[in-house]
Amino acid sequence: MGSLKSEQHVNFAAPRPFVKRLKSDLKETFYPDDPFRQFRGDRRTHQLKKAVQYFIPILEWLPKYNFNMFKYDLLAGITITSLAIPQGISYAKLGSLPPIIGLYSSFVPPLVYAVFGSSKHLAVGTVAACSLLIAEIIGEVASPEEDPTLYLHLVLTATLITGVMQTALGILRLGILVDFLSHSTIIGFMGGTAVIICLQQLKGIFGLTHFTSKTDVYSVLHAVFSLRHEWRWQSAVTGVVFLVFLQFTRYLRDRNPKLFWVSAMAPMVTVIVGCLVAYLVHGSQHGILTVGRLNKGINPPSIHSLNFDPKYLPAVVQAGAITGLVALAEGIAIGRSFAIMKNEQVDGNKEMVAFGLMNIVGSFTSCYLTTGPFSKTAVNFNAGCRTAMSNVVMAVFMALTLLFLAPLFSYTPLVALSAIIMSAMFGLIKYEEIYHLFKVDKFDFCICMAAFLGVALLSMDVGLMLSVGLALLRALLYMARPATCKLEKIPDTDLYRDVEQYPNAMRVPGVIVLQLGSPIYYANSNYIRERILRWVRDEHAKFDSVDGSVQHVLLELSGVTSIDMTGIETLIEIRRLLQANGVKMGIVNPRIVVMEKMIASEFTNTIGKENIYLSVDDGVERCRDLAYNPQKTNPSDDNVELSAVELRV
Amino acid sequence: MGSLKSEQHVNFAAPRPFVKRLKSDLKETFYPDDPFRQFRGDRRTHQLKKAVQYFIPILEWLPKYNFNMFKYDLLAGITITSLAIPQGISYAKLGSLPPIIGLYSSFVPPLVYAVFGSSKHLAVGTVAACSLLIAEIIGEVASPEEDPTLYLHLVLTATLITGVMQTALGILRLGILVDFLSHSTIIGFMGGTAVIICLQQLKGIFGLTHFTSKTDVYSVLHAVFSLRHEWRWQSAVTGVVFLVFLQFTRYLRDRNPKLFWVSAMAPMVTVIVGCLVAYLVHGSQHGILTVGRLNKGINPPSIHSLNFDPKYLPAVVQAGAITGLVALAEGIAIGRSFAIMKNEQVDGNKEMVAFGLMNIVGSFTSCYLTTGPFSKTAVNFNAGCRTAMSNVVMAVFMALTLLFLAPLFSYTPLVALSAIIMSAMFGLIKYEEIYHLFKVDKFDFCICMAAFLGVALLSMDVGLMLSVGLALLRALLYMARPATCKLEKIPDTDLYRDVEQYPNAMRVPGVIVLQLGSPIYYANSNYIRERILRWVRDEHAKFDSVDGSVQHVLLELSGVTSIDMTGIETLIEIRRLLQANGVKMGIVNPRIVVMEKMIASEFTNTIGKENIYLSVDDGVERCRDLAYNPQKTNPSDDNVELSAVELRV
Repeated sequence: MGSLKSEQHVNFAAPRPFVKRLKSDLKETFYPDDPFRQFRGDRRTHQLKKAVQYFIPILEWLPKYNFNMFKYDLLAGITITSLAIPQGISYAKLGSLPPIIGLYSSFVPPLVYAVFGSSKHLAVGTVAACSLLIAEIIGEVASPEEDPTLYLHLVLTATLITGVMQTALGILRLGILVDFLSHSTIIGFMGGTAVIICLQQLKGIFGLTHFTSKTDVYSVLHAVFSLRHEWRWQSAVTGVVFLVFLQFTRYLRDRNPKLFWVSAMAPMVTVIVGCLVAYLVHGSQHGILTVGRLNKGINPPSIHSLNFDPKYLPAVVQAGAITGLVALAEGIAIGRSFAIMKNEQVDGNKEMVAFGLMNIVGSFTSCYLTTGPFSKTAVNFNAGCRTAMSNVVMAVFMALTLLFLAPLFSYTPLVALSAIIMSAMFGLIKYEEIYHLFKVDKFDFCICMAAFLGVALLSMDVGLMLSVGLALLRALLYMARPATCKLEKIPDTDLYRDVEQYPNAMRVPGVIVLQLGSPIYYANSNYIRERILRWVRDEHAKFDSVDGSVQHVLLELSGVTSIDMTGIETLIEIRRLLQANGVKMGIVNPRIVVMEKMIASEFTNTIGKENIYLSVDDGVERCRDLAYNPQKTNPSDDNVELSAVELRV
Repeated sequence: MGSLKSEQHVNFAAPRPFVKRLKSDLKETFYPDDPFRQFRGDRRTHQLKKAVQYFIPILEWLPKYNFNMFKYDLLAGITITSLAIPQGISYAKLGSLPPIIGLYSSFVPPLVYAVFGSSKHLAVGTVAACSLLIAEIIGEVASPEEDPTLYLHLVLTATLITGVMQTALGILRLGILVDFLSHSTIIGFMGGTAVIICLQQLKGIFGLTHFTSKTDVYSVLHAVFSLRHEWRWQSAVTGVVFLVFLQFTRYLRDRNPKLFWVSAMAPMVTVIVGCLVAYLVHGSQHGILTVGRLNKGINPPSIHSLNFDPKYLPAVVQAGAITGLVALAEGIAIGRSFAIMKNEQVDGNKEMVAFGLMNIVGSFTSCYLTTGPFSKTAVNFNAGCRTAMSNVVMAVFMALTLLFLAPLFSYTPLVALSAIIMSAMFGLIKYEEIYHLFKVDKFDFCICMAAFLGVALLSMDVGLMLSVGLALLRALLYMARPATCKLEKIPDTDLYRDVEQYPNAMRVPGVIVLQLGSPIYYANSNYIRERILRWVRDEHAKFDSVDGSVQHVLLELSGVTSIDMTGIETLIEIRRLLQANGVKMGIVNPRIVVMEKMIASEFTNTIGKENIYLSVDDGVERCRDLAYNPQKTNPSDDNVELSAVELRV
């Protein structure tokens, strides 16, 4: 087991060819999940069939579909329809759109998703955050009250942009972009959105007719209180009753998860009861406003309504792009979460294409932005859905509703919708998770609060970008200041560990072992040089004039995942600086990518292959060897080159 | 030496207090070089004195200054003055400024730098790239031909902005920003700038009077050739003669570095000979244009000329900020390079403050942007300067020139200046370095070419930003896709190394050891999960149905420098997924920061402390132990929690 001379072991084989490395890098970047592994080694026709099935998942599961599965999907489909109707109407109102658009959006997109989507549990629908975000951005260039047609057309155009962008991202395998929306950002964004959406519902609860179009806390509260004289107590009482009922069903579900259907059906019950009450007591005469006229009939085509007027295009593109990313993040995250619970896989890039196609087709058929909302998907999952067929069931029931029942819902009181939205939003503010973040990682907490406060106090897109910017800044800081630590020997082992972490580790006289974090590249190479020199200086200061002063520095590189030219030059420079102070430098265990660069740049020859070790223990042994037999010095030590800086006048 | 049970060794001590960690993080980020170490432990007055000396370095070296040092500094000062006069005039012309401004800029700023600068070798002066960059940006809002006064005032204002920005960056310890201009970016930017500056000199060489204000290759070549009828052969011949002379002196210097003074004096000789020729043959009658009237007298104050008109402010701020960063990068890099050759240290943040003050004072005294140019500093160094006193000598000689000799230089032929600039630029295109990049790192090469081609074909700021953007993108990709590899046991040792790198490493049946790159956080956690599952799947596929199928996965984390909440959740998720497939997960050697997060988030309890090992060998031993004694199973395996996804309707 003892350590051997490392020269026998360190692998100095020539670097892999460039094309091979590039191919491997590209694969890791864009195909980390290796989606094509299943096509290998089969016959050509078989391969083709598998490829088509890969891109159109319905071809894979439909042939194996049976009645037993359908029973479950039917039940799940009915359950999510009962949620889709009130949610569709509510969120359309939130997006300042005609309520019928919300119902349309639960008919066509689920059908498209059933064909192309790879998740079995995802239920398609509109989402509160994106609805409000669209209203906020498009509302700046077109007023939903003054010119509702123009506003609607712009929203449909934004939906098309979203769809095209999502499809393109998926085809280009840029799922990596969504990775940059961190969990902390999403928690904060959802929480902040929930707060402002709740506050906005005060409009519906108090039965106000005039209101601000802004979304920040201050404007909304100011609007509510400055309109005190318009408050309607009948509306407020109804709202509170509905809210208590909805919250009670959620409480029941939390107590006993098997009663999930009670809370899933509750919004529908609220709507029906609300309609009956409004119809029977002539609510509109008592300050209870209703949704208003809803026409029979399924989605009319809207392809000719798309509006690409350059005057509005910037806002439309902005709305499409931002909501598209948020919708992707929510949809992919939720799809993944449920797949994980069932030990299945969801391909983020394929999901993007499915979402994209569903929004493109949606924008042609009077639907606005849809994705996989948390709430509906959870209900779908709990109702026991087996395949995407539950989405088809929902679409069919929605079509029936549109064809025959739509007018009945015109009596839906706005206050019932407000209560439904508020109740849904309460669940999105995750106090425990935010507190958990605070406890574990203060910076993550800041990222989360940036999104939360930014959304609540400024505006939704500003809050989101603030938080993403902060997360990126942190990522860059991580890289600019990688952790380095000093390793010392743990007694009775040949292991070297961080002295700060293992205070009982013992110093090896004359040798200082430094572990570098990764990667070494231009943005942190200056830091790394300063830091290494500081370690050596501190060590010199501590053990000055004792025989144990530093003679060797070993850099442990096994944690360094990559290095660039600046990084290699920095290592050369560090070596020169150390040598000028009579200290020798050795390298321990560079990884394959680092070693390849070192060989290509002749670094291994500059420093001398005998100064590269396979393990810290090897290196330390060799250094002590040299200390006792100083004549065995390294051949490359004599010709110290001072050529790193080129002088040109 | 043999491995011990790791439970005895792994340190699960409570995390360090938040304040302590924050302090340590802030120190690493902003004070990696520990500048205050020298103040510790001294008496109060002594501390104060040291602090003042720290901020005003002249107080440190001036008391020790002696006549012997002055002899060297005097020689170096005279040498750089002879370079400063032609360069000052040339670069001012390049920046479309009156030539006298170039001379002014070598008087006041060097004095300021001598007081606050920490480099001993840096020679202060104007630089070609920044001069052209200013002209390009300011030229868009004010024409130097039509309204030279406005143009000059805007340039001075931009210089003030640069100074304020540089000082602020230094005080805020944001030297880290300069780190993000990589070596590859700078090589490409310098090369591209050199090309377009050379091409622009064709105007002077051919004696053209009308010319384009654009800088890209196409516009310049088009202007040169469309003005064929204006070409003056007398001017061209003179230019070629000068150019050959200058290049010859450079060749001499390259052959024998001791002759550096020949090439350092050559530009001055060119100017003097040029003046004589122009005066004697009445050059202007033969198509040889001269600089024109230069007034006697030192810098007039310009504080009242600063122009903050909101109409021009955006361009002024842009020019100030971009040139400021480029100037900082050049100045700090060159200062560092020479300090390293003498084993001295230069504090980047202190240098920033010195540069900033020099530009602020400069903008009040009719100077434009100055920094530490490569060429002048190299000459200063080779001439043997000892301290910043050489800058003072240069300033004094420049003042004498301004007071008595300035009018003589009004005969300087433009063609001589063009030849001087072209000759200087030839040295900035570093073919070998670019080829070296191509050979060693293709991505670095792309970053370099983005700057080179962007500057040459588009514009200087676009090229620069393109390259910086590409470098940042690469940095983010590094992080989003950290390298992972599979470790196997190297025969006859207890070392585990990457199998791709060490193909002779041997598999331990039933155990797969994966080494993760760092850091694990939101942007790469999805990738890491996919990648680990793929490793396990591949291993399963390879050793299917043999008794050696995977039963344990060990994650080697010693290379992971940090982890965030999403990262920890991902680890929990991976564990659950593996357990669902009957595979157990262990963690090897998490570093202190990672361990602290693991403890704070209760991860160590979730996975079980007995599954965290100090070394791979420990972990493997333990796994084999378990395989032979399966009843010794881990207590925490029973209660698999499926609570990671919270469901809320």
